[in-house]
Amino acid sequence: MARPRSFDEDEVLRIARDRFWSTGYTATSVDDILTATGLGKGSFYGAFGDKHKLFLRTFDGYCAALVEAVRRSLDGPDDGAFERLRAQVLAVANATAADVCLRGCLLAKGTAELSEHDPEVTATARRTFRAIEELLTSCVAAAQRAGDISQDADPARLAALLLAVLRGIEALGKGGGSPDSLRAIAETALSLLPRS
Amino acid sequence: MARPRSFDEDEVLRIARDRFWSTGYTATSVDDILTATGLGKGSFYGAFGDKHKLFLRTFDGYCAALVEAVRRSLDGPDDGAFERLRAQVLAVANATAADVCLRGCLLAKGTAELSEHDPEVTATARRTFRAIEELLTSCVAAAQRAGDISQDADPARLAALLLAVLRGIEALGKGGGSPDSLRAIAETALSLLPRS
Repeated sequence: MARPRSFDEDEVLRIARDRFWSTGYTATSVDDILTATGLGKGSFYGAFGDKHKLFLRTFDGYCAALVEAVRRSLDGPDDGAFERLRAQVLAVANATAADVCLRGCLLAKGTAELSEHDPEVTATARRTFRAIEELLTSCVAAAQRAGDISQDADPARLAALLLAVLRGIEALGKGGGSPDSLRAIAETALSLLPRS
Repeated sequence: MARPRSFDEDEVLRIARDRFWSTGYTATSVDDILTATGLGKGSFYGAFGDKHKLFLRTFDGYCAALVEAVRRSLDGPDDGAFERLRAQVLAVANATAADVCLRGCLLAKGTAELSEHDPEVTATARRTFRAIEELLTSCVAAAQRAGDISQDADPARLAALLLAVLRGIEALGKGGGSPDSLRAIAETALSLLPRS
C-alpha cells in the first residue's frame, strides 16, 4: 500500500484561506483547493472533513489572529493608552488605504457572504467583534485613568463607536474610498473623543 | 413565427435582485434566474444581455433607490436639519437591528463580494457612497446654519465620519450585533457631534 503523502497542514490552510478570501466561499470549489494545494481528494477529506469545515477553520484562524493583533497593539500601561488607541485607529485606516487591490478583510467578506445562511460564521463574527470591542473598552478605560479621555464618558460606548468606525472604514475602503478620505475619517473620530 | 412572450421587466429585475441579494452574484446562475422568473433563455439574453449586465442593472437600481431614500430623509430647510440627521442615523440603526435574518444591504454585500475583481461594481459603490456623503454634508451644513452644530466643525469631515458609522453599523449588524448595541452606536455618534 502506498504511504499517504505527507503535507504541511498550516500551508494548506493558508492557501485555502487565500482562495476563499479572493474568490469567496461559494465560488471556491474543492477542486480549486486541491489544484492550488496539490492535495489528493483522500488526504483533503481525511484531514479537513469537507469544504465548509475547512472554511470555518480558516475563518476562525483569521479572526483569532485579528483579535491577537489588536490585543498586541492595545495592551499596555495606562500611560500611553490614548496613543495606542490613536495608533490603532490610524493603522486600520492606513492599512485599508494601502489595500489598492480592494481585497479587504476576510472577516467582513465572509460575514457579508455567509452570515445570513451560516450560523457558525455569524457566531465567529459576533465573538470576534465582541473581543475587539472589549480590547478597545479596556484601552479607553486605561486612557481615562491616565487622564487623556474624560472620566464622564462610558468606555464601552466609546469603544463600540470606534469599532463601528473601523468597520465602516473597511467597508468604504472596499467600495473604493480614497486613502485620504479613509484617514480623515479616523482623524475625525479621534478628534471627537471627549478629552479630560 | 411565435410571438415572443411579454414580461414585466421591472418584476424580473426585482426577482433577480432578490436572488443576487440572498445568494450572492457568483452562486446565482442564469438557470436560477430563469426558474425564478419563468423567463425563457432567449427572452433573458435578448432583454438583459448576460448575468453580469443584469446584476449591474439591479445593483445600480438598488444604489440609486438608496440615495433617493437618503435624499428624501435629509433634504429640507435649515430649521430641523439636525433632527433629520438624527432621525436618519437612528433609522439606519433601527433598520439594521430589525433585520433579524441578517440579510443586510445589497450595496455592502455586492461590494464585499465583487469590488476586488469588478471595476463597474466598485465605481457604482464609490458613486453611491459619495452621493450619500454629499447629502449628509449638506444636512450638517444646514444644521450649522440653524445653530445646532458648531460652526467650527468641517461639515464634510463630520459627514464622512457619519457615513463610516452608518456603514459600520451595517457591518456589525451583519455580524450578529445586538439591536441595542447598534442603536447605542448611533446614539453615541450623535452625542459626540460638536454642538453650538
